[in-house]
Amino acid sequence: MKKFINDPASVLADALNGIAKAHPDQTVDFKNRVIYRAAPKEAGKVALISGGGSGHEPLHGGFVGYGMLDAACAGEVFTSPTPDQMLEATNTVNRGAGVLHIVKNYTGDVLNFEMAAELAAAEGIEVASVVVNDDVAVEDSTWTAGRRGVGLTVLLEKIVGAASEEGRDLAAIVALAEKVNANGRSMGIALTSCTVPAVGKPTFDLPEDQMEVGVGIHGEPGRSRVAIEPASKIAERLVTPILADFQFGDGPVIVMLNGLGGTPLIELYLMYAEVAKLLEQAGVSVARVLVGNYITSLDMQGCSVTILKVDDELLGLWDAPVSTPGIRWGI
Amino acid sequence: MKKFINDPASVLADALNGIAKAHPDQTVDFKNRVIYRAAPKEAGKVALISGGGSGHEPLHGGFVGYGMLDAACAGEVFTSPTPDQMLEATNTVNRGAGVLHIVKNYTGDVLNFEMAAELAAAEGIEVASVVVNDDVAVEDSTWTAGRRGVGLTVLLEKIVGAASEEGRDLAAIVALAEKVNANGRSMGIALTSCTVPAVGKPTFDLPEDQMEVGVGIHGEPGRSRVAIEPASKIAERLVTPILADFQFGDGPVIVMLNGLGGTPLIELYLMYAEVAKLLEQAGVSVARVLVGNYITSLDMQGCSVTILKVDDELLGLWDAPVSTPGIRWGI
Repeated sequence: MKKFINDPASVLADALNGIAKAHPDQTVDFKNRVIYRAAPKEAGKVALISGGGSGHEPLHGGFVGYGMLDAACAGEVFTSPTPDQMLEATNTVNRGAGVLHIVKNYTGDVLNFEMAAELAAAEGIEVASVVVNDDVAVEDSTWTAGRRGVGLTVLLEKIVGAASEEGRDLAAIVALAEKVNANGRSMGIALTSCTVPAVGKPTFDLPEDQMEVGVGIHGEPGRSRVAIEPASKIAERLVTPILADFQFGDGPVIVMLNGLGGTPLIELYLMYAEVAKLLEQAGVSVARVLVGNYITSLDMQGCSVTILKVDDELLGLWDAPVSTPGIRWGI
Repeated sequence: MKKFINDPASVLADALNGIAKAHPDQTVDFKNRVIYRAAPKEAGKVALISGGGSGHEPLHGGFVGYGMLDAACAGEVFTSPTPDQMLEATNTVNRGAGVLHIVKNYTGDVLNFEMAAELAAAEGIEVASVVVNDDVAVEDSTWTAGRRGVGLTVLLEKIVGAASEEGRDLAAIVALAEKVNANGRSMGIALTSCTVPAVGKPTFDLPEDQMEVGVGIHGEPGRSRVAIEPASKIAERLVTPILADFQFGDGPVIVMLNGLGGTPLIELYLMYAEVAKLLEQAGVSVARVLVGNYITSLDMQGCSVTILKVDDELLGLWDAPVSTPGIRWGI
């Protein structure tokens, strides 16, 4: 296993240490493994928290900051954070207007966030949840009942974060989050497995000439395993199921071409060219684009495509100022 | 070879296509393979161009935009762009105040930029050059006479770009570029080789238990090949030679912990924690930090550290607004 680590057991603690040193705008609670904004949001605004297993950086900690999250709970690699962490974060970020939990649809995350919400409610905090389930690849998986929550989470955190800065109330924030979740879809593909540090060997075996179509962000199996193809064909395998699953009409859409951690930017741009071509052919107009590593699977070589149909409301919130280590503009 | 490509011969053209589609603030001249700002700088300001072999993205094309470069010339993967490309870019971006060529110290780049500068001068354009040579790993290499130009190029493009937006003249811009180059040092390490698409196999062989200390950004050999070590020891192998080579005093410094393309962010943060610890021990205060992929070597797993000693002038220029696909703040 070739990795920059000290000890497989201390990867998360060591990485949190680096995040704390690198980003003075964030505060890390090392005991509870929660990343906060150094400057809390004003009183009276809805707070947003998310979290999940580590290994998907910059998600979620890299999206803590003005215009996105108020806190992110970090689990061990590919392991849900605990209800205690989530409760601690919920208590800390609550500014009197309630807290939204943004949950990717993985069974562990869903159960733990549910428990945290109940505990917080018992303490008198108004908590609501949105469960993101945008992955069209498979209906159930080894880690999930229903569709998995993947790349759309990034877009949702940005858009809902902007709305919370505007001062919308919790009911409006929940409705907006559901709207984003309803209008976005994703699909991913892996050229290689990833290696979990504590395991020390690849999560799955993938022959040198094959790829995993519809892979999950923990290396969960996808739809099929096929021979490596040219980028143009791979783009079809990603875009066609997304367009088949939801009526995007003529758009406009926001597109994210996301790298899974081990794929360099030159290949991501090359893939985006193919995706853009397919969307043009389908008559879907693209309003905004992200190309880069936003939700990763450790060192996995691969990429995913997320497409979100937007209206003026969503586009306005997308363009609003944001200042996080992972996404920043307007500030 | 597992890559998202259509054809090894069309990688650059296909990737440029994706860049053009993804970034409406940039214009791509496909024939000459030059990336420009869509909105040219005002007349009377010094223009900055850079360029080099592709495969190092986001360098250089990802740094074209307000506050950094005016244009970037893209060569084939790990191959210098031609003097013709550079001349075309120089002619196009010149706003009557002269053009600075920012050149990484590789023999091909240096010779071609020299020729382009002579051709531009013959056409009456005032051109100056800065050759970046920050890599402390080796004095000469298979690609270079003298030290290689690596990560400091990113910081130099940002700082000098801010000065050009302020309206400083060419002589002042050159002096500033030389100041940045004189005060920064870098060193890198590879856990794996990279694979050039047109070659189809790894550039060098590196056994499963070894790493290349002082590697160049094209996979050139470094100082030594040693057994894999914990991140804390690897950080020492990067930071110690840098601190030995230049008197950083008590700082302040800007630090870039850069990924070489195939290393995920969680490992980069972990490495940054170790680098920060060593700088603390050495009494060097850190003013600003970048952690991420800024100058890469295709899919190589590895990282590099760049440290730049700054004063109020450099820090002010660093903090100035910038809007490029690769680095963005304040706008």
